[in-house]
Amino acid sequence: MRERVNKALHSLIETELEHGAGEVAREAGRILNAGGKRLRPLLLLLAYQLAGGQDESKVMPLALGFELIHTATLVHDDINDNALERRGIPTIHTQFGQAKAVIAGDWLFVQGFSLAARQSEEVVDIIARSCANMAVSEFLQLDHVHNLATSPEDYLAIVRGKTAGPFAAGCHAAGLTAGLPPDQALGLERFGMELGIAFQLVDDLLDLRGDERMGKPRGADVYEGKMTLPLIHALTLSHGPHRQRLANLIETFSDEHFDELMALLNRSDSMEYAEILVRTHLERARSELDKFPDSQAKEVLLLITDFVMQRHT
Amino acid sequence: MRERVNKALHSLIETELEHGAGEVAREAGRILNAGGKRLRPLLLLLAYQLAGGQDESKVMPLALGFELIHTATLVHDDINDNALERRGIPTIHTQFGQAKAVIAGDWLFVQGFSLAARQSEEVVDIIARSCANMAVSEFLQLDHVHNLATSPEDYLAIVRGKTAGPFAAGCHAAGLTAGLPPDQALGLERFGMELGIAFQLVDDLLDLRGDERMGKPRGADVYEGKMTLPLIHALTLSHGPHRQRLANLIETFSDEHFDELMALLNRSDSMEYAEILVRTHLERARSELDKFPDSQAKEVLLLITDFVMQRHT
Repeated sequence: MRERVNKALHSLIETELEHGAGEVAREAGRILNAGGKRLRPLLLLLAYQLAGGQDESKVMPLALGFELIHTATLVHDDINDNALERRGIPTIHTQFGQAKAVIAGDWLFVQGFSLAARQSEEVVDIIARSCANMAVSEFLQLDHVHNLATSPEDYLAIVRGKTAGPFAAGCHAAGLTAGLPPDQALGLERFGMELGIAFQLVDDLLDLRGDERMGKPRGADVYEGKMTLPLIHALTLSHGPHRQRLANLIETFSDEHFDELMALLNRSDSMEYAEILVRTHLERARSELDKFPDSQAKEVLLLITDFVMQRHT
Repeated sequence: MRERVNKALHSLIETELEHGAGEVAREAGRILNAGGKRLRPLLLLLAYQLAGGQDESKVMPLALGFELIHTATLVHDDINDNALERRGIPTIHTQFGQAKAVIAGDWLFVQGFSLAARQSEEVVDIIARSCANMAVSEFLQLDHVHNLATSPEDYLAIVRGKTAGPFAAGCHAAGLTAGLPPDQALGLERFGMELGIAFQLVDDLLDLRGDERMGKPRGADVYEGKMTLPLIHALTLSHGPHRQRLANLIETFSDEHFDELMALLNRSDSMEYAEILVRTHLERARSELDKFPDSQAKEVLLLITDFVMQRHT
C-alpha cells in the first residue's frame, strides 16, 4: 500500500515536471520523495477500506493531497526551525535559500489542495477547516515557546490542531468518501484524533529519550523552547529549588544538562505520566475501531496503534 | 462593487475570529483589510457580468478567493523581499517575526483555496494551475535576480506566470461560472493575460519613475536585482562602455546613481519601448472586450484598461 502511495507521488511530480514546472517541482519533489512513513495517506486508505470503501482510486487523490499538504507544512516548519535535514536529506532552505523554500512549500500546498478540492463539498470543508486549524495551532505553539506557564490544556489544544487534527480530518473524510453515515464517519474522526494525540506524545517522549529515527538531534524540542507534555507536567508538580532549576534548564538548555533534566523529569514521574496518556489515547482509538466489523484494514489499523505504542518503549 | 468586496472580506475574517482562529486571523486580516486596489476581485466580478452572469453571489466566493490567495503571496513575498510595509502598514514578519508571517500566509492560502474549491472541477483546475504557475515563475524570477543575460522571453514567461496568469485565470473562471461557452471564456482569459502583462509593465515603469502609490521606494526592483523590461531592453541595445557602465549600475545599485541609470535607459529609448508594449497589450485586451455585447461591465472594464494606461503617464 505504501508502495502505491510512493509510486503515485513520484508520478505526480513527474507529470508536473513534464508540464514545465521545472525547478520548484524538482526541489519540492526531492523532499516529497525522500521517504517518510506516509502515515497520513496510509491511514486514509485504511480508514476508507474499514468503512467499506471498495475503489481505492476514489480515495487515493485525497490520501495524496494530505501527504502533499503535510510535506508543505514540513518545508515551512523547517524554515522556521532552521532545520538542516528532513527525511535524511538537506532541507530546501539550506540548499536553495529561504525564498525558494517558502515558494516550494506554497507549491506543495497548491498541489495538495487541488487534489483535495476534487472531493465533495463536505470533504473539502473538513480539509480546509483542518488546514486552517493547523495554522491557528502553530501560532499558539509559537506564543508558548519558552512559556513556562503553558498548561496541559494549552498543550492539548496545540496538538489537536497541529498533529491530531489532520489525522482526524483525513479519517473523517475517508469515511465519508466510502459512503459512511455521518455519525459513523465521526467515529473515524475520533479514532484519528486519539491516534494523533498519542502519536505526538510519543514524538515528545522520543525527543527526550533520543531516537535516531526522529531525524533530528535528541532534545531538539527543548532547545527550540517547545513546551512538551513531560516538561509541562514536571513544572506543574515540582516545587521550590527543583522547580527553579527545571525552569532554568528549560530556558537556557544545552547538551551537558541532559542528564540533570531527565533526573528532574523522572523525579515527578513525568515521562511515565506521558506514557500513561499515550496508552489512554491509544485505547480510546482502539475502542473506536471496535465499532467496525472485522476486516483486514481493521487488523492493520490495530497494528498501527501497536506500532505507535511500541515506538516509545 | 469594491465596497461589497471589502465588506465580504471583513466579514470573512470576523467569522473566522468568532470560530476561534485568534491571532493568525487577526494578523492576516490586518493585512487583508488594510486596503489595496482589489483589482483581482473587481476584474472577476466584471468579467462575470460581461459574460452575462446575473447572480453576483455565485462568483463572489471565487473573487474573494483570488484576493485571499493574492494576499497570501504578498505576505510570503514580503518575507523574501524583507519589505517593511504593505498596504501602508507594517508587514507581519516585521512585527511578529518570520515564523508567524510564513504561517499567516499559509492560512490566507487555505482560506482562499477553500473558497475556490467550492467551484466546478473545471474552475478548480484553472485556479490550481494558475497558483502552481505562480510558484514556478517565482522560482524563475529568483534565478534571474541580477542575471544580466535575462532575455525579454524570460521576462515575459515570469510575468505571464506571476502577475498576468492569475488575472487570466480569474477572468477565465468568471466566464465559465457565468455559463460562457469554452471558446468565449478563453477570450476572457486572453483579456486577463494581456491586461496583466500591461499592468506589470506599468509597475516596472513606475518603479523607475518613482510613484508614492507603489508603497515602496523608487528603484526597489533595481535594488533587489529584479530584471525588469526597461533594464533588459537597455542591456540588449547598449554596447561598449555604456553597456559596461549599465551592467555595473545594475549589479551595485545605489540611490545616487539614479539619474545616471535613467540617462542610460533613455539613451536606448527603453522606457519608451516599455510604454509602447503597454499600449500594445492594452489594445489586445480591448480587442477581446470588443467581442462582447455592450454593457455597463464592459464600459467599466474599458475604464480599467484606461486606468492602467494612465498610471504610467
